[in-house]
Amino acid sequence: LTRQAFAEFLGTELRFSGELFQKIQDFFSRRSLKMRARSKTQAYLPTGAKALPNDLGTAPGIMAEIKDKLLIAMPGVPSEMKQMFEISVMPRLQQCAAQQAFVVRKLNCFGAGESEIAQSLGTLMQRGRNPLINCTAKQGQITLHIFAQAANKSRAQQIADNDEKLLQEKLGQLVFSTEDKTLAEVVGEKLAQHNKTIALAESCTGGTLAKLLTDIPGASRYFTHGWITYSNSAKTSQLGVPAALIEKHGAVSSEVATAMAQGARKRAKSDLSVAITGIAGPAGGSEQKPVGLVYICVNSHGRAQTKRFVFSHDRDYIRLRAALTALNMLRLKL
Amino acid sequence: LTRQAFAEFLGTELRFSGELFQKIQDFFSRRSLKMRARSKTQAYLPTGAKALPNDLGTAPGIMAEIKDKLLIAMPGVPSEMKQMFEISVMPRLQQCAAQQAFVVRKLNCFGAGESEIAQSLGTLMQRGRNPLINCTAKQGQITLHIFAQAANKSRAQQIADNDEKLLQEKLGQLVFSTEDKTLAEVVGEKLAQHNKTIALAESCTGGTLAKLLTDIPGASRYFTHGWITYSNSAKTSQLGVPAALIEKHGAVSSEVATAMAQGARKRAKSDLSVAITGIAGPAGGSEQKPVGLVYICVNSHGRAQTKRFVFSHDRDYIRLRAALTALNMLRLKL
Repeated sequence: LTRQAFAEFLGTELRFSGELFQKIQDFFSRRSLKMRARSKTQAYLPTGAKALPNDLGTAPGIMAEIKDKLLIAMPGVPSEMKQMFEISVMPRLQQCAAQQAFVVRKLNCFGAGESEIAQSLGTLMQRGRNPLINCTAKQGQITLHIFAQAANKSRAQQIADNDEKLLQEKLGQLVFSTEDKTLAEVVGEKLAQHNKTIALAESCTGGTLAKLLTDIPGASRYFTHGWITYSNSAKTSQLGVPAALIEKHGAVSSEVATAMAQGARKRAKSDLSVAITGIAGPAGGSEQKPVGLVYICVNSHGRAQTKRFVFSHDRDYIRLRAALTALNMLRLKL
Repeated sequence: LTRQAFAEFLGTELRFSGELFQKIQDFFSRRSLKMRARSKTQAYLPTGAKALPNDLGTAPGIMAEIKDKLLIAMPGVPSEMKQMFEISVMPRLQQCAAQQAFVVRKLNCFGAGESEIAQSLGTLMQRGRNPLINCTAKQGQITLHIFAQAANKSRAQQIADNDEKLLQEKLGQLVFSTEDKTLAEVVGEKLAQHNKTIALAESCTGGTLAKLLTDIPGASRYFTHGWITYSNSAKTSQLGVPAALIEKHGAVSSEVATAMAQGARKRAKSDLSVAITGIAGPAGGSEQKPVGLVYICVNSHGRAQTKRFVFSHDRDYIRLRAALTALNMLRLKL
C-alpha cells in the first residue's frame, strides 16, 4: 500500500526492477528459504524514486525528491528501519543541512520531577535559545536534551560543552548518565567496576527490579541470587524474616524491608542487597498504608538504609517507579 | 505550539476564553495546588474552534471543522487523551459514519508465526473483504482483528460472529483470548479458577516471567514464591539442584530445568511450578548451546514437561519470548 501511495503521490507508476528482484531472491536463498509469492511486490518501485538498500530484510526503502521536499518510506520492522535510517537516510539529511552543524547531548536524570528540574534551570530552557534545551519525562526518568547549532562542528560542540557543564553544575547528583545509559546500566557498571555482588529480595515489584538489572548483558558478573517473596510465609521461609516481625509491623513496613535485605545478603553471601516491599494496588490499601506505599532497603556490607515512599498512579507505574527508585538508591550508594 | 499551529492552519487568531480559564483555576484549587503561570496559555483557543473538556488535566482538546475535514488536537498525557477520545471524539466520528455500523473483534493467538497463521487463513485475509481480517504481531503474540461493516449494528455483529467462529475453528488452541487479555491474565484467571498455586524458578529470564505474572492485580492469590537463581551455586543452594547434575549436563539443560522446577515446587509447596534456564546472550553461546537456547519445564503436581527452544533476535527478545512461551505452556497445561 505504501508503495502504491508513494507512486500515486509522485504521479508515476510502479515499475518492476530486475535488480531489486535479484536482491530479494538472494536474501531468501542465502537463508535456504523459499521465496514467498508476495515478496515479489517488493521489487516494484515508483518511477522516479530510488531504492534504499536493506541488508536485514527484503523490503527496500524508497526515496524521492519532489517540489524541494524529500519523501522517504522505510520498512516497518524496527531493526531494518533503524539501520536504513543510519546508513541511507541520515547522510542525505545531513546534505540538506550542509551549511550548519548540529550537536545533540543528553543528560539522564533521576530523583526530581520535570517541573522541579525546569524550575531550577530557569531561562536556560527558553524557546529559541541556542543551544535549545528540551526536557522529556518517562517513568520517572527526566532526560534533558541539548541541541546546539552552529556554522561548524567544533563551534557547535563548544557551545554544547558549555551548556552541559552548566546543567551538570545545577543538577549535581540528579544526573546519572551523559551517554544515554539506563539506571540499570549505570548501576551494573559501578558494581562490576568495584567488584561487588548483589542480591535482590522483592515483594510488590514481583521481579521488576531483577528484570531491569538482568536486562544488561553480563549481569551474572555481579548478580547471583534473587527472591520474589510474594507471600508472608515465603519471606519467613526463604529470607528468614521472623514471622513475629511481620505480625507486629505488617509485611509492608520499614522493619520487614530491612529484614528482607539482611536475609537476602546473608543467604547469597553478597556484598550488597536490595529489598522492596509495598502495596502496588489497586486493592490492598488502607488509610495508614495507602496504595503506592513502598519501603526500599539497600544493605551494603551490613549497613542498611531503608526509605519510605508513596508513589502514585497505577499498579504498573508504582511497581516500575519502586524498582527504578531502588536502582537510584543503589547508584548513590555506589 | 500545537495551539498556535492550529490557529495558523485555520487562518485565525488565539483568543482568551474566560470560561476555560475558570475551569483551569478550578482544577488547581480542587487539588489545593497553586496555578502555574504557564497554565494560563491553556485558556487560549483558536477562533472558530471548540474546546473539548478534560476532566483529568488542565489542557483542553481543540476541535474544528475545515474544508469538510475534522481537525482535532488532544493533550499528550495518555490517560487524558484516551478519556477525551472516548467522551468527545469518538461520538463525533460516529456521526461522520452515521449510515454505517462497525464491529471490531480481536483474537489473541500464541504458538505460531504470522505467516503460518496467514497461510492457514488463506483468502479470509484478502484485502477488500468484509469483514476485513488484519493480523498484527508483537513479541510472539499474533492478534487477528475482524472489522465488520454493515448498514446496522446487528448485521455487523452477525457477520463478525460468523468470522470469529471460522477463525476459532481454523486456529483452535492457538487462540488464547477473544477479550484482548494478555497471556498472563489468562493464566492467572485459570490458576484462580482452579484454585491452584504456582512457584517460579528463573535463570536467564531473570525475573521477566515473575514480573509478567505479577503485573496482574490479585496475583497473590496463586503466586507466592519466586527464585532467580542466576548462578549455579544459587540453583544448588536455593532450589536443591545437585551440583553434579549441573556439572554433568550444564546449567542450560533439560535436566537442570526439570530439577529447578521440582525444587521450586517442593520448597513453595505449590501445585505447579515453572523453571526457565537458557542463554540470553549476546555472549555465552557455543556451537552445541547457541545463544537463544532455552529449556522450559512446567511441573504440575509432580508431573514434569520439559521443552527445548531456540529463540532468535536479541537478548531482550529471547528473554521475553522465553517467558511468554512458559506462560503459553502453562495455559495449555491448565
